[in-house]
Amino acid sequence: MYLASDNTGPVHPRIMDVLAEANEGFAMPYGADPLMEEVRNRIRGIFEAPEAAVYLVATGTAANSLALATLTQPWQTVFCSPVAHIHEDECNAPEFFSGGAKLTLVPGGDRMTPEALERTILKEETRGVHGPQRGAVSITNVTERGSVYSVAEIEALCAVAKRYRLPVHLDGARFANALVAQNCAPAAMTWKAGVDAVSFGGTKNGCMGVEAVIFFDPARAWEFELRRKRGAHLFSKHRFLSAQMAGYLREDLWLDMARAANDTCARLAEGLRGKGARFLHDPQANMIFAAFPRAAHRSLHEAGAKYYIWEGSLEGDDPDEMIAARLVCDWSLGAERVDRFLSLI
Amino acid sequence: MYLASDNTGPVHPRIMDVLAEANEGFAMPYGADPLMEEVRNRIRGIFEAPEAAVYLVATGTAANSLALATLTQPWQTVFCSPVAHIHEDECNAPEFFSGGAKLTLVPGGDRMTPEALERTILKEETRGVHGPQRGAVSITNVTERGSVYSVAEIEALCAVAKRYRLPVHLDGARFANALVAQNCAPAAMTWKAGVDAVSFGGTKNGCMGVEAVIFFDPARAWEFELRRKRGAHLFSKHRFLSAQMAGYLREDLWLDMARAANDTCARLAEGLRGKGARFLHDPQANMIFAAFPRAAHRSLHEAGAKYYIWEGSLEGDDPDEMIAARLVCDWSLGAERVDRFLSLI
Amino acid sequence: MYLASDNTGPVHPRIMDVLAEANEGFAMPYGADPLMEEVRNRIRGIFEAPEAAVYLVATGTAANSLALATLTQPWQTVFCSPVAHIHEDECNAPEFFSGGAKLTLVPGGDRMTPEALERTILKEETRGVHGPQRGAVSITNVTERGSVYSVAEIEALCAVAKRYRLPVHLDGARFANALVAQNCAPAAMTWKAGVDAVSFGGTKNGCMGVEAVIFFDPARAWEFELRRKRGAHLFSKHRFLSAQMAGYLREDLWLDMARAANDTCARLAEGLRGKGARFLHDPQANMIFAAFPRAAHRSLHEAGAKYYIWEGSLEGDDPDEMIAARLVCDWSLGAERVDRFLSLI
Amino acid sequence: MYLASDNTGPVHPRIMDVLAEANEGFAMPYGADPLMEEVRNRIRGIFEAPEAAVYLVATGTAANSLALATLTQPWQTVFCSPVAHIHEDECNAPEFFSGGAKLTLVPGGDRMTPEALERTILKEETRGVHGPQRGAVSITNVTERGSVYSVAEIEALCAVAKRYRLPVHLDGARFANALVAQNCAPAAMTWKAGVDAVSFGGTKNGCMGVEAVIFFDPARAWEFELRRKRGAHLFSKHRFLSAQMAGYLREDLWLDMARAANDTCARLAEGLRGKGARFLHDPQANMIFAAFPRAAHRSLHEAGAKYYIWEGSLEGDDPDEMIAARLVCDWSLGAERVDRFLSLI
Repeated sequence: MYLASDNTGPVHPRIMDVLAEANEGFAMPYGADPLMEEVRNRIRGIFEAPEAAVYLVATGTAANSLALATLTQPWQTVFCSPVAHIHEDECNAPEFFSGGAKLTLVPGGDRMTPEALERTILKEETRGVHGPQRGAVSITNVTERGSVYSVAEIEALCAVAKRYRLPVHLDGARFANALVAQNCAPAAMTWKAGVDAVSFGGTKNGCMGVEAVIFFDPARAWEFELRRKRGAHLFSKHRFLSAQMAGYLREDLWLDMARAANDTCARLAEGLRGKGARFLHDPQANMIFAAFPRAAHRSLHEAGAKYYIWEGSLEGDDPDEMIAARLVCDWSLGAERVDRFLSLI
Repeated sequence: MYLASDNTGPVHPRIMDVLAEANEGFAMPYGADPLMEEVRNRIRGIFEAPEAAVYLVATGTAANSLALATLTQPWQTVFCSPVAHIHEDECNAPEFFSGGAKLTLVPGGDRMTPEALERTILKEETRGVHGPQRGAVSITNVTERGSVYSVAEIEALCAVAKRYRLPVHLDGARFANALVAQNCAPAAMTWKAGVDAVSFGGTKNGCMGVEAVIFFDPARAWEFELRRKRGAHLFSKHRFLSAQMAGYLREDLWLDMARAANDTCARLAEGLRGKGARFLHDPQANMIFAAFPRAAHRSLHEAGAKYYIWEGSLEGDDPDEMIAARLVCDWSLGAERVDRFLSLI
Repeated sequence: MYLASDNTGPVHPRIMDVLAEANEGFAMPYGADPLMEEVRNRIRGIFEAPEAAVYLVATGTAANSLALATLTQPWQTVFCSPVAHIHEDECNAPEFFSGGAKLTLVPGGDRMTPEALERTILKEETRGVHGPQRGAVSITNVTERGSVYSVAEIEALCAVAKRYRLPVHLDGARFANALVAQNCAPAAMTWKAGVDAVSFGGTKNGCMGVEAVIFFDPARAWEFELRRKRGAHLFSKHRFLSAQMAGYLREDLWLDMARAANDTCARLAEGLRGKGARFLHDPQANMIFAAFPRAAHRSLHEAGAKYYIWEGSLEGDDPDEMIAARLVCDWSLGAERVDRFLSLI
Repeated sequence: MYLASDNTGPVHPRIMDVLAEANEGFAMPYGADPLMEEVRNRIRGIFEAPEAAVYLVATGTAANSLALATLTQPWQTVFCSPVAHIHEDECNAPEFFSGGAKLTLVPGGDRMTPEALERTILKEETRGVHGPQRGAVSITNVTERGSVYSVAEIEALCAVAKRYRLPVHLDGARFANALVAQNCAPAAMTWKAGVDAVSFGGTKNGCMGVEAVIFFDPARAWEFELRRKRGAHLFSKHRFLSAQMAGYLREDLWLDMARAANDTCARLAEGLRGKGARFLHDPQANMIFAAFPRAAHRSLHEAGAKYYIWEGSLEGDDPDEMIAARLVCDWSLGAERVDRFLSLI
């Protein structure tokens, strides 16, 4: 019962199969492999963006940092949520790759509101050359608290960004989970809403280690290629990144896995609700932040369940009694494990 | 007949098997997987270095850049050969990861001599705070021209470095090929000779994408971990790096593959010699730089052989007639393909 | 009536005299001039710190950025007030010089409280290698809002920092103004309280462009020298930095000027109070943030008074009627100009 | 008898006078002072470049590093002479300010030849994304060995750069000395020849600490302003930089001082020649590299002469007998001191 993260689960067997097939004979390195051609075409098709620049890297932090660095000057500041992965969980990688840009936190919770974003933007660049300059806006969807921005919310944030001519980055480490939660088209959630660059995650959704970076305007593609190489993120045996992504996209496997994860999570949420658990955030995708009694934690722990205890419980709860946990469901977790988990509470 | 590079060949089936085995169920992320424990122990054993700090990354440039950045201050300069991979083929990654350190080229060919290294070191740091400060020495073995430093040569270079209290980095992207060419112990070629940190390559020798970084003194291990994460080179599904390296090291597969590659290369070299080819460098491992007639290139090209034409041919050759090529043999190339290659000349 | 900043006023004539005297004949460059010897000794004496490392640079941002970079690793975060100069007014210079460190804002007003600092420290480094690591604490005294930390307050902040083994930097761009406001010894406000490094300002208090950086523990002095040179902040004709600082320190000129500035400011504050102005912050040194009627602003503007309109006025004020201003008094402003200023309200 | 460098001499009294005049009352900070307006206009006039962007900084390393960083991407390499100040004497500042760009040394002596420059450019960017990309060409005039590029030589170098669409930077720390040595117009030596940005030195030629950075195409002016601030090189009391530069340029003082320095140097060279000294480089401006007998060094040292002993003497000289020295003449040295110096040999 691993609910610690969606990076603890296995790779989907169909992706393993494509890796095995890709391992025949010789292939040109550094992205010149034929599978990359397939990947590029598939992603352009999926996003209805026939000119998009598409690249693969192996980690989500690489995707975010390289994408943001391409959109941001070192003297600018990136606007993001205080709980954004780029702020909390990348050990200053965005600062490193951008050459020292700042991250400005938009006050509020897991989801930025257009109003808070605009107020925060307005506070910057009021001091001429002295303060940091306004840079990219970075939106995380699914958020780090398991909630999902709707297309309308993303449109509204992008509208603010565009008003100040700022580029928009979407951290989609859980892009597929957000998409199936919204049941919308990839284009609607991205370029049609005003997003300029996407970190399109595969790793957390059944791949081994692969993320695509997509620029809808290919103007800075060559700069990205140089940044990727200089960041040591260009794979020589690139076909094995391509193969993962090809297997991920073929026959909608990516959507099926995201649906499986979200469905498992919904089942878990429902079960927890039935057990009287209380939720710190609205679980809309494959992540739950819920408080339940200490005794239940003990049983779960003894039964080998793995998850992170979360700081703080809900206001009004007795902290001695109620402890919050972060529970993440990956594509492979399944109903059976969830039911067993619930039975221990 | 792919002789373009040792990064165009397939992954060894036994490594694919370990990857498949590793794909069972859940595993802790970020290096806390049990296979990493095995890898650490194997590498410590192989290098007779029970306290060594051992880390995995996915690209050779990451291994080199992160290792060098850990050994080098931004105001220092790294001493290396003019043909070092870190200088010619990493798009300023060492400069990026080190925060702007310089690379000082030691005049000479593919192998630095102790004399040239010392003369070059002596020229730096003669201007107090004004010039760059002396930093790490980086040795590439196998060199980028296919020659191999002997243990004695590495000892001599390290002795110079130690005289000036400079740390030594070994770029071992082809460590195994150098080792079997010398038939020596890993410890002899590294810490016993005075090497402080090693980029221990797997990718070019039958892995999918994995390199170990080894620090014999673990004092800066934590700094390396932070640099790796900040460089976006820490894998969440780390077990798939561990699995590759475990498969690589089990039952001496790494040495067997390197021997296969070197033997194939020796067979090719002998054949080329018989055909009157001339050598730009002494082929000691799995790489050949040889000049042969233009007509032979044409036949090979038509037969689908892939390799890089090399700048310049040997002095005294008629450039219209003789063209140099870089021919790299990987573990999987085999005698048959080499014989077919030779038959076309 | 220039109250825009304390960087708009003239250099004190006695400092100009020392500059003129220093301009005799030849002098060794880069800090080897005899006046630097005097400066070093004077600062060591003033701070009762006979082993302190003392350096000069020409801008406050250089002093802060170089001092912080010496105390902070690129993967760490610096704790500071949301209104700190290093955060708001240095265009990402601390991020640049530190190689991409983050700044974490301690919630609250102009002065950090020990409780808020500790809560903020506790939130960082809870995610192992994933989040930024805890780095230096930076205190600004005089704060950017004109208030002054007492010695006890600095001691309390340093005590928190030391509990987590974090170094402490004091941004003393207005060190002298803070000192005379508190009427305490330089050592009491710095190393005796737990401060490790000080940006000791001269520019805003009657110099032309000179700041000292003081490290009480000289262990990282050489690193600082290399950082200063690499940051292009080492002056060749260094004697003219030394001369300014020597003139500044001789016969307590620095304290006299700070007292003059603070006294002028106190007179202004008293006058404003008499006119019914309201204060956004408690004016304790040489800076006032006060709201007064729009009509008064108009008269002042017409009479040629220069100062910055400040965002926001006091709660409860009618924003159409009351407008806030930042009024800064330098050593040379004097009672007469202040009285004329007041007469216009 | 200070011949150690042209940064050991005094500031010209007329510049001190302008500084004193500038010290009247209040002035707007950060370059908004009226004297900066004068400086900008004078430099535009002198260079016949009415749209040029003109900025002031206080050190030559700042001028070079900021100018180069504005012209160079972090994944590029700057082409320069192996003895360029940016390579040998700035402690990796160009690497730091550019975010990790490389410097590629054009083989040869103090002056790059167009042929060597082109050969070196051709060697780069032959490896696609793998190697550093071609970046700016940086020319130093006066060179670090005291020789001077003619206008024709600069034109030829710029022609090569333009052929590869590379921007050209001129390090003119001794711009005035080069100009009067060539007796040519500033425009002829710069933008008319193809130079894009100039570090226009004042410090070594009678100023206290001021250099102008000139971009003939103002397109990247705002980027430069942000880089200057972020590099901590924007002066708050900027009028004192402006005043120096204004005094320097008024009534051709800059040319008069350079002529004085060059004439003194010519007198010294002639005298040395008469004494049988031999020259390592052709002294064309205000610097001499000459070998003379050890005994003469001894007499000079005893008489208090200051200069740097230079590595190596001329081939064929007896090293026990002949020792090389670098002798630099500043505007204030004068014939009398030179004659006394010569009398001691």
